[in-house]
Amino acid sequence: VTIDLNADVGESFGRWRLGDDEGTLGVVTSANVACGFHAGDPATLVRTCRYAVDRGVAIGAQVGYRDLAGFGRRFIDVSPEDLAADVLYQLGALDGIARSVGGRVAYVKPHGALYNAVVHHEEQAAAVVGAVRAYAATPLPVVGLPGSVVLSRASSAGLPVVREGFADRAYAADGTLVPRSVPGAVLADPTVVADRAVRMVTAGTVTAISGESVAVEADSLCVHGDSPGAVGLAAAVRAALESAGVTVAAFAP
Amino acid sequence: VTIDLNADVGESFGRWRLGDDEGTLGVVTSANVACGFHAGDPATLVRTCRYAVDRGVAIGAQVGYRDLAGFGRRFIDVSPEDLAADVLYQLGALDGIARSVGGRVAYVKPHGALYNAVVHHEEQAAAVVGAVRAYAATPLPVVGLPGSVVLSRASSAGLPVVREGFADRAYAADGTLVPRSVPGAVLADPTVVADRAVRMVTAGTVTAISGESVAVEADSLCVHGDSPGAVGLAAAVRAALESAGVTVAAFAP
Amino acid sequence: VTIDLNADVGESFGRWRLGDDEGTLGVVTSANVACGFHAGDPATLVRTCRYAVDRGVAIGAQVGYRDLAGFGRRFIDVSPEDLAADVLYQLGALDGIARSVGGRVAYVKPHGALYNAVVHHEEQAAAVVGAVRAYAATPLPVVGLPGSVVLSRASSAGLPVVREGFADRAYAADGTLVPRSVPGAVLADPTVVADRAVRMVTAGTVTAISGESVAVEADSLCVHGDSPGAVGLAAAVRAALESAGVTVAAFAP
Amino acid sequence: VTIDLNADVGESFGRWRLGDDEGTLGVVTSANVACGFHAGDPATLVRTCRYAVDRGVAIGAQVGYRDLAGFGRRFIDVSPEDLAADVLYQLGALDGIARSVGGRVAYVKPHGALYNAVVHHEEQAAAVVGAVRAYAATPLPVVGLPGSVVLSRASSAGLPVVREGFADRAYAADGTLVPRSVPGAVLADPTVVADRAVRMVTAGTVTAISGESVAVEADSLCVHGDSPGAVGLAAAVRAALESAGVTVAAFAP
Repeated sequence: VTIDLNADVGESFGRWRLGDDEGTLGVVTSANVACGFHAGDPATLVRTCRYAVDRGVAIGAQVGYRDLAGFGRRFIDVSPEDLAADVLYQLGALDGIARSVGGRVAYVKPHGALYNAVVHHEEQAAAVVGAVRAYAATPLPVVGLPGSVVLSRASSAGLPVVREGFADRAYAADGTLVPRSVPGAVLADPTVVADRAVRMVTAGTVTAISGESVAVEADSLCVHGDSPGAVGLAAAVRAALESAGVTVAAFAP
Repeated sequence: VTIDLNADVGESFGRWRLGDDEGTLGVVTSANVACGFHAGDPATLVRTCRYAVDRGVAIGAQVGYRDLAGFGRRFIDVSPEDLAADVLYQLGALDGIARSVGGRVAYVKPHGALYNAVVHHEEQAAAVVGAVRAYAATPLPVVGLPGSVVLSRASSAGLPVVREGFADRAYAADGTLVPRSVPGAVLADPTVVADRAVRMVTAGTVTAISGESVAVEADSLCVHGDSPGAVGLAAAVRAALESAGVTVAAFAP
Repeated sequence: VTIDLNADVGESFGRWRLGDDEGTLGVVTSANVACGFHAGDPATLVRTCRYAVDRGVAIGAQVGYRDLAGFGRRFIDVSPEDLAADVLYQLGALDGIARSVGGRVAYVKPHGALYNAVVHHEEQAAAVVGAVRAYAATPLPVVGLPGSVVLSRASSAGLPVVREGFADRAYAADGTLVPRSVPGAVLADPTVVADRAVRMVTAGTVTAISGESVAVEADSLCVHGDSPGAVGLAAAVRAALESAGVTVAAFAP
Repeated sequence: VTIDLNADVGESFGRWRLGDDEGTLGVVTSANVACGFHAGDPATLVRTCRYAVDRGVAIGAQVGYRDLAGFGRRFIDVSPEDLAADVLYQLGALDGIARSVGGRVAYVKPHGALYNAVVHHEEQAAAVVGAVRAYAATPLPVVGLPGSVVLSRASSAGLPVVREGFADRAYAADGTLVPRSVPGAVLADPTVVADRAVRMVTAGTVTAISGESVAVEADSLCVHGDSPGAVGLAAAVRAALESAGVTVAAFAP
């Protein structure tokens, strides 16, 4: 059994530092690197890609809305034409930087409000997929929520799809994520989170907030690195997976 | 005898339109396309690259300072590390867009205040050259002022250099450009400008503002496209060159 | 009978020019001046406010989403707390500039997608009204669509409300505006538009796209100034109103 | 003997947090609040001004270059007309927010590279002073380096001037600051820094890096708050001053 661990990195901007990128890149196998529209000034991206290449971590383009003030967490009703161009621009910018340090963009994961929008929003999902298709000769995998519009459109367009699971988030009985605003939606106990990760990967199930066992098919687990504690949690997840005989490896070669 | 004609395009931004890109791309052989930092939203860049590819015009990355409000025309004392990363980011972004429509970035021309800075500024010139070197497996040519630091550093780094001439600008007796603030610094009469272009290309000389004949070695002539009149002037220059037996062709294949 | 004429001005940004502000300010009685978030660099705002003060035109703050690339025309799902702060910031910035040239912000009109959002969006409408209330000792009038949430909330909060009519837009039989995407939604014939303006102001009615006469109560008519033709249309509307004995004057002293 | 203590606050931006504003505002008497151009989103400014009003701390407008990516620390060769408009815009924006929570902008302190530029740069200094003069009916004090062009121009223009001293920075024998790049330029030992502050205020002298005693006339001492340790250092300075019988109070009522 093999699983990928992904986390967001490269989200500093100029004077402002965010997250422990070096710590995170010591744990994960895939790095969702910001592309400058929601976070990530170019010098930060150069440093982050260099760390990732040094550690053999796959580089993904974490494309987002053009919204530094909102960190890409606010839905923007951008037209499909503009969104596709924005995604192309971000993809190329990060890929150019990654290649300059010996790497390359190996996959795409929409960020924040765009990630949530393309679960349901047909036009924006199509724009993202169209941009990824147009970008590269070799189709790039797209990471998203299982059952999302973006993954079904990506699949139809011939792009590999990567279904994402969340070991530190509560699931509802129907397999969807419990909104963050609900008490208990986010789990912090490393032992609990690590156990859920192992069961999600080895048994394909998770215990819902209402107590039922729910099927979850995940090709990559999302962990967080925006605090030293988060890196510790991610490391606990990885250690538990490896102890259970799971191979932790990037989906993208 | 062969000469290239280059002009700035892709300098609209969202609702704001600037220049007659379609008209300009019908005249020139090399298009300096904005890269988003001083002008050029991504959807504009997609459209502009598509025009350029359709007309067989070479695409250059017109990299600039991160300064939309100042249109890249204000010197910014950015550190070499940040500037190199900014150039890499812009190069990759435009190249990704160009490739998505069947083209590619074929050369680099710094824009505005950065163009002027790298005539003399050693650190910023080195940063630009370093970024261009790091970007691509195949070295990209750099367009600049004859005698500038950026061209000498580019040459030392193994990059092809393209010396730029200005048929519509007055030259001083020492071969430098007369500042725009001096009366007579900018020429507008199509016949005069076209004649100067022909003489610059065929004889390698231009008449200075003080009357002397001055040597000017140019591999590319800069024309402008930011008004319908400017496109007419560019067309007059091209027609005069062709009538004089000069081949007008891009330096970058 | 008295009516106000308002138009958007100050929407240039740096190198990019938009609209004929001087022409427009020679016709209208109220100027919706951009505040920098969707358009309007500070130097443009200084010039625009100076024109408005010179011509005795009332200055309104045309507050919008923080979205230069989208010109404020894309809905952004910004939180009420952030939106209220964004509105306060824009109000203060424009008012400071207006006061430096002898004027002041005399009213508020949301711009573009924000204008449309606060027709229905309770939280964003409340945020805008809260910011206007918090800003000034003297309550500032709010311009909006008749029947909109923002006007009803403004009224409840003790702010004067200004109902806006559109002489160059088609109305549906229920009194709402026909979307721009529908053929015939925008009228361009100066005689037709001027006639509709006169009837709207003197009779309180307009002929709907389906032929019925519809009641429209307007305290201010919106005209446009983003092309020389638009200024001519605005002037035709003003001339027709004055010929019909209507006094054209600002609602805000 | 009375002295003011000032510090930079409000320098977070959206998701990115910087400094311990609440801790800092518990120690200083004057708060240099960012105005959005180098840092400080509007919601941060509302919160920061509310803290400052609650604690009775004077609010100053920390105006800077339009450069979020560079945090206002890079010289920009902006024209005097644009710079004056940028300063007016920032002043009005912060003042509007301050007034909405019961405060007001009581002084102006240029930030970062602008602070350094207006020590010598005549045109930019004049632009800053012109904007402050044009802004308010009551002249606002300007904080700057003793001997700087900006203070001399402010004084000539009838603005109160506030000379700033730095207890945690090394001085050269000629009374100028030792550049940060020189070893020993920044002092961190709370006892040493507090002693220097007391001597600077009570005796008007400081020991230069070369050993001599140098005269320093300061109306306000700058302390830092961008880390918990910095707040502790600021508190040590304040305690030492009060123990020495110095009254710590804002210069601006």
